[in-house]
This record gives sequence, C-alpha cells and structure tokens, in this order.
Amino acid sequence: HARRTDGVDKNIWVEFIQLAADYKAVNLGQGFPDFSPPPFIQEAFCKAVSGGPPMHQYTRAFGHPPLVKSLAKFFSRIVGHEIDPLEDVLVTVGAYEALFCAFQALVDEDDEVIIIEPFFDCYQPMVTMAGGKAVYVPLRPKVEGGTVLSSGDWVLSAEELTSKITPRTKAIVINTPNNPLGKVYKTEELQMIADLCIKHDMLCISDEVYEWLTYDGAKHVKIASLPGMWERTITVGSAGKTFSATGWKVGWAISSGQIIKHLKAMHQSSVFDCATAAQEAVAHGFEREYELFGTPESYFQQLPALMHHRRKKLASCLESVGLQPIMPEGGYFMITDVSSVKVDLSDQSATDEPYDFRFVKWLIKEKGLATIPVSAFYSPEHRKGFDKYIRFCFVKEDSTLDAAEDILRKWS
Amino acid sequence: HARRTDGVDKNIWVEFIQLAADYKAVNLGQGFPDFSPPPFIQEAFCKAVSGGPPMHQYTRAFGHPPLVKSLAKFFSRIVGHEIDPLEDVLVTVGAYEALFCAFQALVDEDDEVIIIEPFFDCYQPMVTMAGGKAVYVPLRPKVEGGTVLSSGDWVLSAEELTSKITPRTKAIVINTPNNPLGKVYKTEELQMIADLCIKHDMLCISDEVYEWLTYDGAKHVKIASLPGMWERTITVGSAGKTFSATGWKVGWAISSGQIIKHLKAMHQSSVFDCATAAQEAVAHGFEREYELFGTPESYFQQLPALMHHRRKKLASCLESVGLQPIMPEGGYFMITDVSSVKVDLSDQSATDEPYDFRFVKWLIKEKGLATIPVSAFYSPEHRKGFDKYIRFCFVKEDSTLDAAEDILRKWS
Ligand SMILES: CSCCC(=O)C(=O)O
Ligand SMILES: CSCCC(=O)C(=O)O
Repeated sequence: HARRTDGVDKNIWVEFIQLAADYKAVNLGQGFPDFSPPPFIQEAFCKAVSGGPPMHQYTRAFGHPPLVKSLAKFFSRIVGHEIDPLEDVLVTVGAYEALFCAFQALVDEDDEVIIIEPFFDCYQPMVTMAGGKAVYVPLRPKVEGGTVLSSGDWVLSAEELTSKITPRTKAIVINTPNNPLGKVYKTEELQMIADLCIKHDMLCISDEVYEWLTYDGAKHVKIASLPGMWERTITVGSAGKTFSATGWKVGWAISSGQIIKHLKAMHQSSVFDCATAAQEAVAHGFEREYELFGTPESYFQQLPALMHHRRKKLASCLESVGLQPIMPEGGYFMITDVSSVKVDLSDQSATDEPYDFRFVKWLIKEKGLATIPVSAFYSPEHRKGFDKYIRFCFVKEDSTLDAAEDILRKWS
Repeated sequence: HARRTDGVDKNIWVEFIQLAADYKAVNLGQGFPDFSPPPFIQEAFCKAVSGGPPMHQYTRAFGHPPLVKSLAKFFSRIVGHEIDPLEDVLVTVGAYEALFCAFQALVDEDDEVIIIEPFFDCYQPMVTMAGGKAVYVPLRPKVEGGTVLSSGDWVLSAEELTSKITPRTKAIVINTPNNPLGKVYKTEELQMIADLCIKHDMLCISDEVYEWLTYDGAKHVKIASLPGMWERTITVGSAGKTFSATGWKVGWAISSGQIIKHLKAMHQSSVFDCATAAQEAVAHGFEREYELFGTPESYFQQLPALMHHRRKKLASCLESVGLQPIMPEGGYFMITDVSSVKVDLSDQSATDEPYDFRFVKWLIKEKGLATIPVSAFYSPEHRKGFDKYIRFCFVKEDSTLDAAEDILRKWS
C-alpha cells in the first residue's frame, strides 16, 4: 500500500463510535442531532426524491445549479461581497470533503499550516497527507480570578501566533464556533488573524459549520467579510450542521474563483459530483431562509433557541454531579474537567493512553455513557494538561439527555 | 496552490457537459439514464427519507450496516468467496470515490499502473495524483475479414501486456463491461490477466460498474472469482449504474480486509462517510435482488432487456444514416467511426485538437446533438487512429433517441 495512509489508519471517530455501539451506550459522543431536521427541509427532500428522472441522475459536478445559486445569493448578503455561483462556490460531500479538497489543492510538499488547538481532528491528517507540516498554536485558558467558566476565556495570543509564522506558512485554519470547545471568535480576534494573513500573505481556511449555533449573545462573524480577506479565505460550511441533517452529506467551500478552481480540480478527481436530490432540498432550504432572514420564522433564527435549552439541560446536569462545564458560546459541544472525579482506571488496559482516553473508555464500558476525550483534539506534543477534559454533545433529545443524567447521578 | 492539481484541471466531462447544456443539445453524451430508477428502489428511497431521525444523521463511516451486510451477502454468492461485511466492504461516494481511494491507498510514488486503452478517463489523473506512472496497453481491433462489428473484436494481446510489466508494476486496471467500447471480457481473457497478476504479484483494480448490463449472450465474469484472485482484486461497483440512479452517488469497493483497510484510511480522511438514506435504499435493493436472483422479477435480470431495445434503436438509427456502429457487448455506450462523414470542421477554432473533439463540438454547436469523443479515452500518445470514433450513450428515453435520430437524418 501507499505510504500516504501510514499513520492515518487510527481515527478517534471510528474507534469511539464503534465502542459506543458495542456497549449500546447513551451517545453524547459523535456530533449529530438524534432528532430529525425541520419539517420544511424534510419535505423538500421527500419532494425531490419523488421529483422525476433528473432528481435521480447526475447533476453539475461542482454543484447542483439551484444550490450554488441559492448559496451565492444567501452568502453574498452575509459576506458583503458579490459571490458568483459558478465560479466561487463548490458543493462537496459534507464540509469534510471541502476541507480535504482545500488542503489537497492548496498545500504543497513542505508548506506549513497553522492549526489552533484544540482543533477538529481531521485537519492534521489532511495537512500531512497533502505533504504539509502542521504547526500548532494553543488557545490558552485565562485562569486569573478563578475558574474558567466559558469558552470565551480561552484566548489566542497574537505574539504566540506570530512566532509560529515562517516564510513557508501557507495557511491558517480557524474554526468558529469551534469544536470541541465552543469558542466563537470575536471580531477583534478575527481582525488580529486577518492582519497577520494579509501581512504574511497567508490563506485562511475557515471552518464555519456551526455558524448558526451561537448562544448567550455571542455573534458569529465571517472572517471573509473583513477587508482584504475575501480573496484569501476559503469558507467551509455544512448543510448537515445548518439544517440538523448530518446524514445528508452536503457541504460547500466558498472563496474567490481563483482559489475555488483548484478545489474543483481535486473534487473532479476524487468524487466528481454530489448527490442530486439532497442538493435540491438544501437549495430549497436556503431559498426559504433568504426570504425569512431575520424574521422569527427563519430556522437560522430558531436554531440557537432549539439548542440553547439542551445546552442548559446538560450544563445543569453536569453541575448537579459536581462537574463544572465550560459553557460553549457556540456549536454542538460542551467540555468539562473530570480530573477531580474519583475513579479507578487501573483496569483500563492501555495505561500509556492519555487520562481522558482511559476515562472515556471506562465511562462507555462500565457506565454506558459515550463522550469524546478532548486530548484527541490536540497534537500529541501538546496533550499534556488537556487530557483532563471530556467532550459532551448536547444536541440530543430530552430523553437522551435524561438517560445521560441518570447515569451521571448514579455514578457520582 | 499545490502542484498535484496541475494538469488535472481540464476534464472532458466538465467541458462537454457544459457545452451540451449551453447549446441545449439532445444529450447522448454523459452516461446516465434520462429516466427514473425502478419503482421498488425509488419507493425505498422515499421511505428512508421519511423514516425518522437516524435516516437523516451520520451512519457508520465505512458503510451503513444494512448496506455492507446486503452487499456482502449478495456478492459472496457471485464471487464464491465468503465476504465479511465489516472487513471486506467499503461504501463510497459512487464508484468514482472507490477508484480514487484505491489509487490513493495502493499506488505509491513511482509505482507503475497498467491501464488498458480505451479507458474511463479518470484512471489517468488518479494514478498521476497518487504519484504513480500510468502505462498503457491498447485493445486492438482485429480487422481481418472486413469491418469490425462488435466490441468483442477488440482484443488484448498477452504478449503486449506482458511486455509492459516491470518490477515496479503495482496494479492493472480492468473495466468490464468497458467504457467507452462496451467490451465484456471473456473468461479466457480474464484468466490470462489473472495469471499475469499472480505471476508478477500485481493487484487488479476491476471497475465493474456496468456488471448487470450485458447483451446478446455476453456474460459478465468477475476476475475476483478466478482462483487466487480474491486476495489481489479490488472490485469496484456502482448503485448508480446497477439501479439506474446515477445521482444517488453510492458505490463500493470489495476486496480482502487486508486491502480494504487501506482504502478505509483514505475514505476516512477525505469524505468520512456517505449519505445515510440512499444507502438504506440501496441495501433494500440488494436484499430484494438476493431474494429474486435468477427469477424474471429480478431487476438485474430485466435490466439488459430494458437497455437492449435502446441499444438496437440507436444502432438502427446510426446504420440508417450510413454510420457503422461497433456493437457493444455491455454497458451504456456505442461507438462509431465518423471519419467518412463529409463535414467542414475548419470553423472549429482549436485546430490542434484531435479530429473527434472537433467533430463532437461541431455536432453540439451546429446540430444540437451531444456525444463524447473517443480519443478522450486514450493517452495523448496513443490517440492517433482512434480519433475517428465518437461515443453515444443509449440509455435514454425513446423520445430522446428519436430526437437524436431526427438530427442525424437531417444532417446526413
Ligand atoms: C468525523 S465525525 C463528525 C462529527 C463531528 O463533527 C464531531 O463529533 O466532532
Ligand atoms: C464522470 S461522469 C460519469 C459518466 C460516465 O460514466 C460516462 O459518461 O462515461
């Protein structure tokens, strides 16, 4: 086999999803809602699937025409830049494929890519497989004045970031709202990153799959909307996270046509095109949201409220068993420090594993509750100190959260 | 941008699909039915899409459990080898992604891969992007005794194939039934290839997307079913071609777990998983076909008859305007020699292009009929002599074939 797959054979999702399934655990692990997408988009999918021959056959390789049109229209308004549907948009098999195409198309042998820790784990193998070198900068919890209570307390130091930039730095990856922490970058933070991108001629790959999921007044800002950033930002989005339909596998990359054309070259050589009917349904969803934007009927308006209540429920539950949640400003996840929990992990075979990996395995196997170890979102060299956190997904039915609460109460 | 996308930016599909759309041409170009998949599988898709939360959310990364189970069960019987659903099967975003994962996972820097011409064009950029070197062996039309009338008259010379094998040869790619020619490899031909694979320790990537589409008594044989070949063959299949639903983008690779594990590593780093509801529907389709196998109700039994009539219709139409079709033994396509057609192509701007490219462009622009130039299925160095053919897709509604016939009659 080819050397490029060496070292990418292990994957936390594959490992922990399987373990959760094997033990039929209550699943607050992988990030997906265990409820259905809203009726309007389910109906659009049903309609597409019964919509006659073209809905069952190939569509345009770089995106179903109605979808690229509706994405361009919708996001032109948000970014404040005229987006060309045919040149500036690529529809992909989920945000995952958009990230893959971006790294493959833009990162060359020995290019450096800056990744902010904690980070969605796929960035690292994707950079490595492209022949690039991942360079890490951690968010640092501001601990002055007591406990860290919010993802907003984890900050990026401009000095530290600057110190990692070299003439070989090709790009920086940001993720806002962030997975696993839930940090929503403020305009000033994005401006600091943008200034460095412009000064050092770096690209910015901005993973914004949770863009509509922000809480307690946090506002999602697109770095592509800052002056001078449109032409150097690849904004990645997800219909799965946007419409609570992760199994549809529809995502996109948006940037200037000069950049997107390279992602297209990768896309046409790897999957060629995306499923038609799901794209048709997502196009319908964006047309609807365009019309309703800012009104109470808009799903994007309702989404935070729909999730906020689950977030509160999980937070209370954690608090009631003595675990201090770090409240996320956005996204699907909440992390908590479990280092004070008294539990004997000596039975967990692989004692060379980080603490959180052993803890999470114990929690699945012994207690039937699945979560994800946070140190999986760090480079091995920076894991230390962060393996005391575990990640809970809260976009779950009340009954699922209740079942998790039951387990936590009994155990603690 | 990264060098890996250099030279893969041009793609005949992108070019000719766009041209056909721009000129609103009658479309016998890209290979897809312009009719719907059979009711049983459409209904299965509709049912899945209205089937509650899990149908809208992520499923297992390497294939939806019911689908890998039904594929393993179905193909175990065909291949005559016990296929493990979890180890030996990978579900992909169409056969296209299966091919991509196979080349990326198995071909390393400087490995050689033998490709039989004419070949489905994506093999070449996929080999090149993996760092490999494509080595070409042409099928040669046996011209003794007059005109070549059937795809079966195009043969692979064992001597010529053997002469291309070097210690660096990693794999050979076969495609049966073949695109664009329609050749269905006979058992003896496959045995010859298998013998060489075993003797020279080569893998075989076998693209069998048209496996159920064979005509006039031609029989599709799986090279993986020949002795000693299971462990060195990657068999690629397509729900799109199997169930006349190309827009669903569900495909698979089947091989020994020792090989599939490397394809899985690529898949999990590029798209991670495939859409859930379409996989559920395809699983249902294979369960049904397993039960009905060999009976007249089986769709796989009916499929050749459904297509055979379209094939005959197109062949008669070509003959009636003085074009001699090379009758395909299988697949979606028919090629014909257009070198005797008197037409002035001097208006077609790019006169450095092969004759068939110019001819096809003329046919789209001036006559409103879209086909595909056959020399696109050859390496540039072997195009000569084959740029007199153009490819027609015949899996089209009668009304589409009638419209094409009208155009051909008026022009000739
Ligand atoms: C690769 S699984 C995707 C799920 C997800 O985004 C997460 O759980 O972090
Ligand atoms: C890459 S487009 C796929 C269609 C096809 O298989 C063909 O027309 O040959």
